[in-house]
Amino acid sequence: MKNLISHFETFGQINFIYSTEFLESNIRVKPDLDGLGALGDLGWYCIGALLWGKDYQLPTTVQAVDVTTNCTGVILSFTAAFHWDISSNNSAATIHCSFFSNTSMDLTISGSNATIHTNDFIIPYQEDSASFELSCGAMFVDLHIGWNAVPEEVRVDCELPQEALMVEEFSRLVRGVVYDGVQPNCKWPEISRKTQLVLDGVKRSIDSGCKLVQL
Amino acid sequence: MKNLISHFETFGQINFIYSTEFLESNIRVKPDLDGLGALGDLGWYCIGALLWGKDYQLPTTVQAVDVTTNCTGVILSFTAAFHWDISSNNSAATIHCSFFSNTSMDLTISGSNATIHTNDFIIPYQEDSASFELSCGAMFVDLHIGWNAVPEEVRVDCELPQEALMVEEFSRLVRGVVYDGVQPNCKWPEISRKTQLVLDGVKRSIDSGCKLVQL
Repeated sequence: MKNLISHFETFGQINFIYSTEFLESNIRVKPDLDGLGALGDLGWYCIGALLWGKDYQLPTTVQAVDVTTNCTGVILSFTAAFHWDISSNNSAATIHCSFFSNTSMDLTISGSNATIHTNDFIIPYQEDSASFELSCGAMFVDLHIGWNAVPEEVRVDCELPQEALMVEEFSRLVRGVVYDGVQPNCKWPEISRKTQLVLDGVKRSIDSGCKLVQL
Repeated sequence: MKNLISHFETFGQINFIYSTEFLESNIRVKPDLDGLGALGDLGWYCIGALLWGKDYQLPTTVQAVDVTTNCTGVILSFTAAFHWDISSNNSAATIHCSFFSNTSMDLTISGSNATIHTNDFIIPYQEDSASFELSCGAMFVDLHIGWNAVPEEVRVDCELPQEALMVEEFSRLVRGVVYDGVQPNCKWPEISRKTQLVLDGVKRSIDSGCKLVQL
């Protein structure tokens, strides 16, 4: 997916990203355990997906809209909008996270020439392969009675499940530091830190009554 | 789709609706032709889809977020969030409409038990059938290594294309008034009027600098 959306001639400029996660949860709704609720749990993955799509450029502004909390103030569902200004290729994103709906996790990235969709971006349906839909250069045919291109399914086989790849990567990094004397890798801490910064921005917006927050 | 989302035991309560349309356009970007731009063009269909999903209950609040206009003030892209209060089954919706991206038109409706997706809800890919994806009661399998249910494709055959059905319905209604002396039908004017009311709400929010608008 990254190869595809990074290829400007195919995909064009990324204009809009949409990500959502729904998951029933009963451990993240106690303020003394995780007061961030749906934001701290589901929001982490959706924000991570936006940042991944935008090559970890931070959005310029963040604004929560439509927040539902329980009686102890824990966030049960929310929508948030993000904007990157022109210096970061003027684009927008929306996420919606909720503990109310049945399990689902969507990611859509729309570029000026193409769109990709996937419905299982956090936990894939199967362990041995994953797929996404690619719609490229779609236009209406004459008389608008259909489209010249329907989305195609792109399937990627996985030798190892994502959790095994994570442990493999972690072990590789530790081995490098312990045995080969290399400096600790900055990639993953930077990703975590940026995800947390954006998440904190959404929380600030929620706490201010859904005001626009500059990052 | 309507049968499915109306069946409470299967679908549960509708919690969230997401709709988007992208279309390149060059006739809707002149203020003396259609100053509403992407809102008046693409927004009409997305708002229509939300209202259809919610059985034409008007949302309680409307808020535009992230609006892009051209130098003459015509709306080129926008995101808007909608909320229905508890008396209308507490639900939320987001739409995103843009003239910047490649052609695409998505509709997602998430209920507490199921989710439906379609990617061609305005102009279907083919004239003789249309399909949507249904994901019902999905849960993680043990160890979170996959899901117990993957989305199934539901295909509906169409005897006539939607434009022919529209003309057929219009003729039927006119015939009733002219030949059978029945009162003009209220269904379609009510749908148009409600769509316009919500669209005007989004415009008011845009004009007020994206403030929350009560409908």
